Amino acid sequence: MDEDPAFALHRGGKLHVTSSVDVNDPAGLSLAYTPGVARVCNAIADRPELVDTYTWKSNLVAVVTDGTAVLGLGNIGPEASLPVMEGKSLLFKQFAGVDSVPIALTCSDVDEFVETVARMAPSFGGVNLEDIAAPRCFEIEARLRERLNVPVFHDDQHGTAIVTVAALHNAARLTGRSIGDLRAVVSGAGAAGVAVTKMLVDGGIGDIAVADSKGLIHQGREGLTPVKRELAEISNKSGLTGSTESALEGADVFIGLSAGEVDESVVASMAENAVVFAMANPNPEVHPEVARKYASVVATGRSDFPNQINNVLAFPGIFRGAFDAGASDITENMKQAAARALADLVGDDLSADYVIPSAFDVRVAPAVATAVAEQARADGVA
Amino acid sequence: MDEDPAFALHRGGKLHVTSSVDVNDPAGLSLAYTPGVARVCNAIADRPELVDTYTWKSNLVAVVTDGTAVLGLGNIGPEASLPVMEGKSLLFKQFAGVDSVPIALTCSDVDEFVETVARMAPSFGGVNLEDIAAPRCFEIEARLRERLNVPVFHDDQHGTAIVTVAALHNAARLTGRSIGDLRAVVSGAGAAGVAVTKMLVDGGIGDIAVADSKGLIHQGREGLTPVKRELAEISNKSGLTGSTESALEGADVFIGLSAGEVDESVVASMAENAVVFAMANPNPEVHPEVARKYASVVATGRSDFPNQINNVLAFPGIFRGAFDAGASDITENMKQAAARALADLVGDDLSADYVIPSAFDVRVAPAVATAVAEQARADGVA
Repeated sequence: MDEDPAFALHRGGKLHVTSSVDVNDPAGLSLAYTPGVARVCNAIADRPELVDTYTWKSNLVAVVTDGTAVLGLGNIGPEASLPVMEGKSLLFKQFAGVDSVPIALTCSDVDEFVETVARMAPSFGGVNLEDIAAPRCFEIEARLRERLNVPVFHDDQHGTAIVTVAALHNAARLTGRSIGDLRAVVSGAGAAGVAVTKMLVDGGIGDIAVADSKGLIHQGREGLTPVKRELAEISNKSGLTGSTESALEGADVFIGLSAGEVDESVVASMAENAVVFAMANPNPEVHPEVARKYASVVATGRSDFPNQINNVLAFPGIFRGAFDAGASDITENMKQAAARALADLVGDDLSADYVIPSAFDVRVAPAVATAVAEQARADGVA
Repeated sequence: MDEDPAFALHRGGKLHVTSSVDVNDPAGLSLAYTPGVARVCNAIADRPELVDTYTWKSNLVAVVTDGTAVLGLGNIGPEASLPVMEGKSLLFKQFAGVDSVPIALTCSDVDEFVETVARMAPSFGGVNLEDIAAPRCFEIEARLRERLNVPVFHDDQHGTAIVTVAALHNAARLTGRSIGDLRAVVSGAGAAGVAVTKMLVDGGIGDIAVADSKGLIHQGREGLTPVKRELAEISNKSGLTGSTESALEGADVFIGLSAGEVDESVVASMAENAVVFAMANPNPEVHPEVARKYASVVATGRSDFPNQINNVLAFPGIFRGAFDAGASDITENMKQAAARALADLVGDDLSADYVIPSAFDVRVAPAVATAVAEQARADGVA
């Protein structure tokens, strides 16, 4: 298999644990281990907050999954998810100096998952949830946020939402509008679709409607899950029914977060100055070159087209900022602040092919971290 | 606090996660993360054994504790145990190139502990249990060994036992005897006392009696826990009753694994060519210079006297060997093989002040690893 460079690169795994301390002689051993370490343990036992100063906990994220929704591959199980989790850890470190450890769990339900993470919480300064199937991901995140006093962040929801909102801010600016002027249609009501919709509603979007595989979600639809029931209540003010395609007629924004293809004629039916974010990977809902014939701004999830909506623009800086501030939570305001900081980096270079910074723009993580840390203090969670 | 060099050294913690892979451009990112990583995930989903080749799992130990018996400090809780666990990880890496991650758990009982570790098992190639109070440590280890198909090792039991047995082999050799010629008394029936006794019984010691805080454990004693009942059955052939002190009269070996002091006159009452391992830390049960007046060989747990019985002589090489062989368990034979390899390193340099190698002897981990890997294959667990 190693003729494939992806396999060659993964041989032996991508991560190592290293130490900043060398123990080469009895004196060093007696400080880093017994008997010296006992003094540090006793100090933490007396003053629990010292664990943040004298261990790696306050810079350490658990990257936790159950392997039920890995990339676009579905429920491939915890072991097979590990290369993705290692990749996440690698990006946390490289982009923001955050240490993290992949924890892939065998859990049969939400209760087990929540209990397991809560029991291991003494070891970690934050929890990044990853590749957990909807709708269980929503309940897991909500319960862990309530239960733990450290930041909990489901990247498939909020990482995607933050970057999408940032790009949409700039797309609106480019075409002389604000978020409040836009009517959007979201295809996909999984983790990302739900989070993007909520964040845009919080951000004051004109209107937004969400479709799942059965069509548009509206208050009159029967059999909605609790999460989709909530979506019906907060979105789709005009009560659209039917398909993604019908809703897109005259719409300003299409946000594709499912693999469902969208025909060229549908994009052609959108309003003037349309914005198309076709983020399905590896095959966007509509080919970006086709979409560009009609839309003013087109973004995808791919690195080989302009305007890549890539979560790596968000999660490293989010945790860097939360850790720098000593935040106990990641609030909605902190996510909005991250999106604004990301959008602002584009500045005067804004163009149809540049509504969002590159994943390799070294300004990104520090800018996001600063904004997140400031907002954490303003929100009183740090 | 940082005027104390132990605190200064611990500031920010002792561990980091690093990567062997740099992701500096879209091509690198597309191999280490999406889309390239998906091919590796799919391969593992199809052939689960590939997780050992293409992730770090097969070189990764979870160092798991509940913080209920940390060093000699007692039940100081999971957070306060973290500096010790980080120290363990540092030693794993430095001495044997084994990656490991501290996992300190909040668990109220054995069931929770076992379930939690079992659920996180997909992420780890081995489990090192650490600083868990007796008797729960015995049940936790037994159940995890049965349940998991990776090596599980309670260092406070078996690490101590392996190094003690190695040192005793050499002490016997120095005085022209074998283990079978010796009558020993063990003070302390916690994790280490139980494991040392079992290992010496397995190794054919002449006789061995164990005392807890209530005196010697024998078959006629009432109210024994299940673990002490088992000890009563396999040890103390001559049915001694009473105290450690009375049993030591005429005994060949004293193994101190509690903090209980032993008077000089008691050491004087032992047999000729007595062996005294006074391993309580930081205060040995009898001062080594006092013991040396009567005993032919004296060992302690301290680095500032000859013959330090230090677990670091065992656990790094044990896991290195188990990982190198791909072992699914650490058998009794593998522990005995480790003790023999450790004892053999002393070779012709054997003397009263050198019955066990130094913790910094670079031959130790490779020798232990080789012996453990060979025995794993011989035992059919690799």
